[in-house]
Amino acid sequence: MSFPRCALSATKGRRESRSPIRSGMTAFIIMKRTLNSEALTKVGEEVKLSGWVATVRSHGKVAFLDLRDRTGIMQIGAFGKELATQVATLHTQDVVEIIGTVKKRDDRYINPDLPLGTIEVEAKEIKRIVAAEEMPFDMAGKELVVDLPILLDYRTLTLRHPKVSAIFTVQAALMEGFRRAAKELGCTEVFAPTISASATEGGAELFTFKYYDHEAFLVQSPQLYKQMMVGVYERVFLTSHIYRAEPSVTTRHLAESIQLDFEIGFIENFEELLDALEFAYTEMIKYAQETCKKELKLLGVEPSHVHKKVPRVTMREAQELIFKRTGVDHRKELDLMPEDERELAKWALEEHDSDLVTVTHFPTKKRAFYSKPDPKDPEYSLSYDLIYKGLEVSSGAQRIDTKEDLIKVITERGMNPKGFAMYLQAFSYGMPPHGGFSYGLERTTMKLLNLQNIREASLFPRDMERVDERLSKPTQAKKSS
Amino acid sequence: MSFPRCALSATKGRRESRSPIRSGMTAFIIMKRTLNSEALTKVGEEVKLSGWVATVRSHGKVAFLDLRDRTGIMQIGAFGKELATQVATLHTQDVVEIIGTVKKRDDRYINPDLPLGTIEVEAKEIKRIVAAEEMPFDMAGKELVVDLPILLDYRTLTLRHPKVSAIFTVQAALMEGFRRAAKELGCTEVFAPTISASATEGGAELFTFKYYDHEAFLVQSPQLYKQMMVGVYERVFLTSHIYRAEPSVTTRHLAESIQLDFEIGFIENFEELLDALEFAYTEMIKYAQETCKKELKLLGVEPSHVHKKVPRVTMREAQELIFKRTGVDHRKELDLMPEDERELAKWALEEHDSDLVTVTHFPTKKRAFYSKPDPKDPEYSLSYDLIYKGLEVSSGAQRIDTKEDLIKVITERGMNPKGFAMYLQAFSYGMPPHGGFSYGLERTTMKLLNLQNIREASLFPRDMERVDERLSKPTQAKKSS
Repeated sequence: MSFPRCALSATKGRRESRSPIRSGMTAFIIMKRTLNSEALTKVGEEVKLSGWVATVRSHGKVAFLDLRDRTGIMQIGAFGKELATQVATLHTQDVVEIIGTVKKRDDRYINPDLPLGTIEVEAKEIKRIVAAEEMPFDMAGKELVVDLPILLDYRTLTLRHPKVSAIFTVQAALMEGFRRAAKELGCTEVFAPTISASATEGGAELFTFKYYDHEAFLVQSPQLYKQMMVGVYERVFLTSHIYRAEPSVTTRHLAESIQLDFEIGFIENFEELLDALEFAYTEMIKYAQETCKKELKLLGVEPSHVHKKVPRVTMREAQELIFKRTGVDHRKELDLMPEDERELAKWALEEHDSDLVTVTHFPTKKRAFYSKPDPKDPEYSLSYDLIYKGLEVSSGAQRIDTKEDLIKVITERGMNPKGFAMYLQAFSYGMPPHGGFSYGLERTTMKLLNLQNIREASLFPRDMERVDERLSKPTQAKKSS
Repeated sequence: MSFPRCALSATKGRRESRSPIRSGMTAFIIMKRTLNSEALTKVGEEVKLSGWVATVRSHGKVAFLDLRDRTGIMQIGAFGKELATQVATLHTQDVVEIIGTVKKRDDRYINPDLPLGTIEVEAKEIKRIVAAEEMPFDMAGKELVVDLPILLDYRTLTLRHPKVSAIFTVQAALMEGFRRAAKELGCTEVFAPTISASATEGGAELFTFKYYDHEAFLVQSPQLYKQMMVGVYERVFLTSHIYRAEPSVTTRHLAESIQLDFEIGFIENFEELLDALEFAYTEMIKYAQETCKKELKLLGVEPSHVHKKVPRVTMREAQELIFKRTGVDHRKELDLMPEDERELAKWALEEHDSDLVTVTHFPTKKRAFYSKPDPKDPEYSLSYDLIYKGLEVSSGAQRIDTKEDLIKVITERGMNPKGFAMYLQAFSYGMPPHGGFSYGLERTTMKLLNLQNIREASLFPRDMERVDERLSKPTQAKKSS
């Protein structure tokens, strides 16, 4: 946050305006709290504000205090030796109550960068409710300059910095934008369990635990459940926690993360899924950008280039295109590499002014078993990834929709259909053509806000080295980017 | 669902209206799907419908089919030997596409009980997309008459019965109502992890698992995280999964359930918390009742008696009141018993026309360590439960808000403050007076809809005997009501 150097002109007369009738302490009890933002409509009135001290600037007989509450930062002026001295003893993160008068700032002191920069409050009484301990680093600066481990070691403190809390205000808006888009698509919200008795996808490793006298897993995805729910509501969405125990440390993986899922039945063709995928993602980004203008400005983030039309290429086209642009030949690879995704993003931005690009038709054997092979060329599947600023943020496919085909592919992949009894049951009783996709909430937050590490986009990130505190005996990690 | 016995009058002439130009199969591909509910505005038009066969009634040259899609049930009439015979071969849960003409029903055939009971569709072409296997029980009746184990064994099927899916439509509305109320209270949505390194509450047993080289737990509550977030946003809400490994089977406990949480900072008094608790719960119920009229009618559920004013009693007053009403003397007990809650509900309904009653001031030692003792009588805490139709659906308290007091109580209860390092950190840096509460989503669904067992209010319930399928080696369960 920025600290305006503007100031109330400290005149002696002002202190006289203090009400001589009430005792201060009683006033604190009697008066109802005004939120900082509510003060905008209370110019000339006496108010009681509550919040945390963001910073203090003391100049002898004049002192200023920036007060943070959930609606923003308010500048408080303290004039006269007694009050100014009191303010000078306050520290960042102290919890305080302040009684004072709301004043319009002189034109020359207006700070257009602050939402409440047109007013300030002249303090009459200040009461410290809770004293904070000494700050381990500068929390009062415009930027919070700490390394990632410190950012997370002091998570309950660093989250209070406006540039950190803004990240999660945007994240909440992304979630709300997702739900709105899902409802526009006619989806019903459903709730899937995270305790599972069977591994759904293979691949990523599982957290296993003793469930009474049995073995259970934490789900890698609510995939099977959302498909089962297509038989009930046709179109469903869900937001859930997913778990992956892979023993690696990267900038884009977490052991526990939040996944936003859609599944849609009675699709008439593959393109309908791509339309839904791109519509919902675009709407989600737009909603966050429209409702979090203040936060994006604070974070210095330019709006993403998201348009109704998202460029689409097949994986093979993408490899060809990358080969032509860079000479790097990945045309025999069975998947896109992270550097391919980044190059593709460059192409999409240059050629289509788009931060998004959809890649379709990944090799069938590289995708989860329930992905439907393309009838025209079964070596490739009716699958897709959505790439946002060079990172895969979404994945999905049209699904196999007959029990026979599912049993065949489960068996071919060396799994036991018995482990999928409830899932297969849904297909015994009539499943329409369907497909879906999921978005990673932390990845989306990270890319929207141009963060460098996914841990910055998780309130309390879980990885192999940390569960709130650093884990005592760090395991040897396989480091990769 | 009910199956109206009304019928289209079968006249020969009707079949002639079939378009002779298009081949049927091409028409299925060309035409865009109409949802059942959209047909209301398409009387006289030819439409293509898709969905599941709910039931078939065959009368030789005339047959009727009720078609279920996500918007409701549509009656389809099939006239003439060919079509009627085709319909007669269809089975419940078959996935079908139907081309036909939307007709207004004759007045005498209008079914006011069905949202789409004023129209029907006269079929021209019927195509079976997927054949369902034989039903293991009657899915076509108005009621689904199966025992709980069968209801859950065939979960992907039974959820398709309108009386079962309606439960979860209401549940989704409760969730949405909760979020709306939370936003009205000024809360920001936050996302807490479910993997924890410390046990928060003691009491209920934990699911423990190997987290890389360490031991971790599934959270019993996001309690500590929501409190930490008060330092950031003052007011937060979250919806999360909670886990309890208690080896008992009751009608009101699940191993995994969904908890709706609030936490509110800068409260001025205890009553403010009670106001918020009751406001949000009442709004949530009202929202579900207003948006799910159709479902409540189908389920035969009368609206709950929820009013702005909820009766409040302390636990000791409640025990006194129950003693006076029934002669049952629990005045020395340290908590309310389930039968006390039920008696209290009777009192609230009789005396205050309320299905809700708030009980406050439970003994401090019976509540979680972070509950604040009443300064006037520290033996009792500033805690509360909300009772809905005789069942505790919510719990909460004002919180201890200094680090010293927290360390003291953690130590007194035989726990190690080191296990709460991140939580205590928040209190090092200034925490305002605060408190909160949580609602159980499944319990609320259960009571709103007068269900007998909480498993009916969970899409895929987890308990010690079942994870989708019944667990192979049932453990000896401690049965209680």
